[in-house]
Parts: sequence; structure tokens; C-alpha cells
Amino acid sequence: MIAEIIAVGSEMLTPYRQDTNSLFLTARLNQLGVNVAFKTIVGDNWDHLTGVARTAFSRSDIVIFVGGLGPTEDDLTRESVAEALGTELKRDHEIVTAMYKRFAERRIPMPDNNAKQADVIPGATVLPNSRGTAPGQWLETMYEDALRIVLLLPGPPHELEALWKGQCEERLRAVIPASAIATRILKTAMLPESAADARTAPIYQRHPEVETTVLAGQGQVEFHLRATAATMDEAQAAVDCLADELQDELGDAVFSTAGESLEEIVGLFLQMRNLKLAVAESCTGGMVAERITSVPGSSRYFLGGAVVYSNDLKTLFADIPPLMLEAHGAVSREVALALAENIRELCNADIGVGVTGIAGPGGGTEEKPVGLVYIAVSDGQKKEVVQRRFPGDRERIRRWASQQALDMVRHLLM
Amino acid sequence: MIAEIIAVGSEMLTPYRQDTNSLFLTARLNQLGVNVAFKTIVGDNWDHLTGVARTAFSRSDIVIFVGGLGPTEDDLTRESVAEALGTELKRDHEIVTAMYKRFAERRIPMPDNNAKQADVIPGATVLPNSRGTAPGQWLETMYEDALRIVLLLPGPPHELEALWKGQCEERLRAVIPASAIATRILKTAMLPESAADARTAPIYQRHPEVETTVLAGQGQVEFHLRATAATMDEAQAAVDCLADELQDELGDAVFSTAGESLEEIVGLFLQMRNLKLAVAESCTGGMVAERITSVPGSSRYFLGGAVVYSNDLKTLFADIPPLMLEAHGAVSREVALALAENIRELCNADIGVGVTGIAGPGGGTEEKPVGLVYIAVSDGQKKEVVQRRFPGDRERIRRWASQQALDMVRHLLM
Repeated sequence: MIAEIIAVGSEMLTPYRQDTNSLFLTARLNQLGVNVAFKTIVGDNWDHLTGVARTAFSRSDIVIFVGGLGPTEDDLTRESVAEALGTELKRDHEIVTAMYKRFAERRIPMPDNNAKQADVIPGATVLPNSRGTAPGQWLETMYEDALRIVLLLPGPPHELEALWKGQCEERLRAVIPASAIATRILKTAMLPESAADARTAPIYQRHPEVETTVLAGQGQVEFHLRATAATMDEAQAAVDCLADELQDELGDAVFSTAGESLEEIVGLFLQMRNLKLAVAESCTGGMVAERITSVPGSSRYFLGGAVVYSNDLKTLFADIPPLMLEAHGAVSREVALALAENIRELCNADIGVGVTGIAGPGGGTEEKPVGLVYIAVSDGQKKEVVQRRFPGDRERIRRWASQQALDMVRHLLM
Repeated sequence: MIAEIIAVGSEMLTPYRQDTNSLFLTARLNQLGVNVAFKTIVGDNWDHLTGVARTAFSRSDIVIFVGGLGPTEDDLTRESVAEALGTELKRDHEIVTAMYKRFAERRIPMPDNNAKQADVIPGATVLPNSRGTAPGQWLETMYEDALRIVLLLPGPPHELEALWKGQCEERLRAVIPASAIATRILKTAMLPESAADARTAPIYQRHPEVETTVLAGQGQVEFHLRATAATMDEAQAAVDCLADELQDELGDAVFSTAGESLEEIVGLFLQMRNLKLAVAESCTGGMVAERITSVPGSSRYFLGGAVVYSNDLKTLFADIPPLMLEAHGAVSREVALALAENIRELCNADIGVGVTGIAGPGGGTEEKPVGLVYIAVSDGQKKEVVQRRFPGDRERIRRWASQQALDMVRHLLM
């Protein structure tokens, strides 16, 4: 069985936006043993969309439309798919009622155009969208004597993903032949990409039965392993064996072996040891705190802290003596250490983090260039500060620095 | 005239790789006044590729194939295009000779399979590739009574880009009608998507000469306008006219007319008025500060603030009386206002922001459900607090709340 993903939206035909939902869908389809044979990107244009739908139905077993389910005039997916299938939409009044309720809860009157989101292809199962107004649709139908599975899904990634996991996978599994694909993800922190690859390539090349993909971001290198076999035991054994060998080589640079983010791992460690964290950030401007608090339940181990962007606030919220700022500069080893230690004490936390640096693009000097960052952690007894020169633009430098800070907390807790 | 870009390569049908060449090609085609109507991604599969070629020739004036021109068995673009056009490749012996020379210069024997890179579609012009072995091809041909321009280009970006700029643009300019494309982007804050569309659809529908795309995120609706005309003046006048009408309708919900982000606009306003900002965030956990400091130069108007995640820190860093927390709860109108006003005073800032709410997924009650957020701003004289119930998951609720906070600062400064 082959699948086709059709991303609908004129914005994805500009130089500025790209379809990214298909990456998520491809990963999930692959896990079910289904290959994606075609991806098509088409604009909000009746003729184009209807033509694309006909082409897809004629060549692919599973056709997944993403986007174009909203309330606006531009949203034409429902209508075009019905037209391509030679049928007409029917309005589902239960959905209309549910939409009225949703708006009423938020005390906003529902605009009339919203009702078109309740138009359903005859024979389709409606897939309620818990995170948005536009429901998805699932249809099994014959097209030119072949069985086709047709899916209409909303474009916003969080809606799409929830709907896919909650309502599409089980349905698909029931209609496609079973096969076993096992995957593992190993994530490492603060390992240079080229070093990571040089050390691991000889290992994963010895295991052609496992498909290995190496992905690198700011301070993070991930190994995605994937094996297909007759049984799940066999597939799992293959990825586990390679994962073990890679972990032996990479040691404690590996922070996650089951997909967790670095902020989740740090949270788990803090919670297990019943410790509280506080942070004082200058150049990262809240990014460390934002990453930590992106994890549900982080209030159990994160107290908060200060964004000490100006020098005055470094003194006000983290007791940094003005004389220290004058003597060493705000971007210095001394200030980073004092930020970590003082924020820990002031907040009555167990561990403190301090970050200060030059994110650029302005503000660099020969002595203190853009990308220079000092990151410190302290638990009162053990104090550590590192100096780093991160590459890239403002956003990348800040991301690297926040990654380093989280990784230092992880090492302190190991 | 419409163009279709076909990216050829099975690796782009995995979860890990994406076609990116099409962004470059789209930008360059748009500059020539050509719209991209379809993008298709297809694997190295004879039947699939031949079918995709036929579909493209039947619907698009300019069909650009990228990739699949190498020497391996997998490289099928030349053969498939010839098949779809009902013709047969001819080997060009001049190209073969040039390839032998290229290899001889590098003192490597040429593998035999390389010769297939010299196979040319009858009637096509060969486009020498200065950065690789596989030449491109340019063909003007009739397909089902319509003139089609067919381009075969290599996949490696640096080869593609050099070949495009050096040998394709001039040729295209000579055969397509001269035209220009002008664009404008209008961004609005905190306007519900359906309301924004209901108010604007009657306006942009009166301007079919401008292609309007509406994009919505958390608390942000964007209108992307695009017009094609004989001259740039004419195209620009068309988008400017619609932009003005839309702005009249949407009023001060529009925060940007030239692509700036909300945090950039807030920064510009603060800088123009020489005012300083400080923030005290609970549920957003640093996201407001992170967004503000993502803008280069934000130290000129942003002092910093506190991430007051725990109740103790609300008292420590923002002077919130424990009695107030007890009486109203941390998530309350009173606490939000006090956070904004106190952080302003403490930091010696001109404007203070306070955010407190329940981002979930846990922690909600019937009285204070997940998504409930209070956001306050104060400049000492004018104090404002709003209560909102944001939809979605933790990440979206936090994003909505940070958007509301930034938008309230913008309104205070208007």
C-alpha cells in the first residue's frame, strides 16, 4: 500500500513557507509499515485542487489531505475532494451545534462562515478535533474500481498531530497489512556534529539492518534508528543492539534514549532528587526558564528566577556588586558564577544557574566577541563555570547557551 | 503562465529530508513574474516518475525537474521525461568526450555508467554544468497542443543555483511575457481568525487582481498580498490599494505592514518614546522576556524582570503580599495587576507587564480552568488587566498569553 500526502495552501507555494506536516505524517506512516510515494503541494485553487485530488485517487491507496479545512473562502479541500469523487457535501448539524457551544464557552459569537466546517463527504466518518473547530474526515471509498482511504486533516500541526494519533492510526492499522518496525532515538548534548559522526559511523555502518539517520541542531546530535523485521521482537532487538553500541561509545553525552528532550530529563532528575532550581539569565533573556517551564509539572522543581538583562537588574535581583560589574564586565566568568550562586541563595533553591554573554549581532569587541558566553551552575558546594564561543546568529547563540546551561545542570545531578 | 517544480529523490519521502531547492526556484520564478502552482515530490521509481511527468505536462506551462540526473541506476529523470513525451533519448558524444576530459583532469578513470548523463531528449538544449558532471536540459515542446517549457536540473543546491542563474533565467525571460510581482504582508494581533476573515473577505474578494492568503497562529492573523502586473509600479499600486482598505477595516488590530514581528514593533515603539520595559511572568515562564530579547538591540529598551513561577518568588521578586496570594489566589486579576505595577516600580522601568495563569495540562479547577490567564500592563498612571481563556495545549496557551501581553504593551504605547 502506498500513501500520498497533499499539503493544501497557497502560502506553501511562496518562497517563505514550507510544508512540514508531511515529515510528521511520514514518520507515523512508516511506523505502520506504509511508504509515502508522493507528496504534492497545491494552492487554494479550485481547479488545481480538484485535479490534484483526481490524480491522487488514481495512483495512491491512501490519500491524505492536510489543510484547507478552515472557515474561510480560501478553504476548499472539502468541496474539491467531494467534486473529485463525484459527490456533494452534506452539512452535519451535530457539528454545527458543537461549534456553537465551543464559541459560547469562550463567550464569542460564532461567525456564520464557520458552519461550512461542518460539511461532510457522504459516507465519511467525522473525526472530532479537540484542539480546533475544523473536524477531520475519514473515508473508505471506491475510485475507478480500487479501494481508496481518503483522509482530510487540519493544517495546524498541534491539531493535526492530536487528531492523527488519537483517531487515525488505529483506523489505519485495522485496514493495512501488519508489519513490525522498531525505532529508537538517542540524543546527545554538546557534542560537535563532526566528532559525533566520526566516532559513530564505523559502528552504525556495521549494522546495515538498521537504518540510521543523524540529525544535528544547536548543541544536540540525535541518532534515529529504525529496523523492519518479521516480528517486533526481532526488529526491537536490532535497534537495541545498535543503540547499546552507540551508547557505549558516546558515554554520558547521551542524555536520552527514549525521545525525551533535555529539559524533560533535567526535570526528571530534579524531581527524583527532590531538588529545586532557580535561574538568572542575561543574554538568553528567559530562554532557559522558558524551556524548563515548557515541561508540564515543572512547578514541582522550578521556582523561577530573574531575567537580568540590564546591569541594574543584575544588582537588584541577583545581588551582583556594581564593583564586580565594573572590574570584570557583565560578560565574565565572575559574574556568571555570582549569578548562579546568588540566585540559588536568594530563591532558597538547591541549584542555581547563571548565564551571561554576547548574543549579537551588535555589542561584540575584539576581547569579547559575539558568541562569547559564560555559563555557571552551583549547588552551594560544587560550583562550575564554562566559557564558550558559540557560532551562528543571535537565535542560534542563545539556543546553544540555553542547551549548555541545561546540560550542566544534568551533569551536576548525575 | 504557471510553473510546476518536481523534486525527484526517494530520500525526500523519508521523515528526515525535505526538498529545499523549490524555495530558491520559487523566489527566482516569482521575480520573473511566474507563479508556482504545484510542487511534487516523487521517488526514484520509473512508473511514479513517468506518471508525475505526464500529469505535469498536462497542467503546467513550465515544468522543472530537479534531481535524478546522476549516473546511477536510481537516476531516472531523463528516461522518464522522454517516455512521458513519447520520445527516446539520444546520446550526445560531445558531452561524453567532455566528461572523459573532466575525469582525466582529475586523473580518475570514468566509470562506464557515467555516459548515461550524456543522454539528451531530442530537441533539447544541453545546459553545461560547471560544478558537476550532470548537465541540465532545456526543451520547448508541444504536449497535447500546448507549448511546454521543460527543464531538467541537477539536485545539489550549488549546482542547481549556478545553472539556474547562469543559463535558465535569460532563456525564460525571452519566452515569458514580461511581468512583475509585488507583495505586502499585514499582521494583526488578538483578532479571532474567523472574525478577521468575515470582516476582510468582502474587501479582498473585490480585488481579484491581488492574491490574498490568510495565515493564522496563536493570536496572530496575517494577510499576505501578492499582485502580478505588466510593471512593478502597477503591481505595487494594486497591493498597496488593497492593503490600505484592509487596514481601514481592521484599524489598530494591524500591528505591522512590512513584515515585522510583534516583538519588533513593541521594541520600535519603546525605543521611539525612549521608554524602558520590565516583566514579571508566572505561567509564561520567561516566554515574554525571551520573545522581547530575541530582537537585536533589545537591551536599549528592555531591563529584564522576574520569572515568578513559585509563590515565594512572587513575593521575593515582585513584592506580592502573601495575604493577597491567599485571598485571591496566584491566578487572579489582583495578582496580575500587582505583578505589572510592582515590577515596574522595582526595576525603575516605565512600563511593567504581569502574567499569571494556568497553562495546564494539570492544575485546572472548575473555577479556574486550564487556559485561564490574567495579563496586566501598567505605566504607573494607566493600569489595565484582562482575563482570557485561551484554547489549546500548554505551548499554545503560553504563546497566546505572551502575544496578549506584547499586544497590550503596543496598545499602551499607541
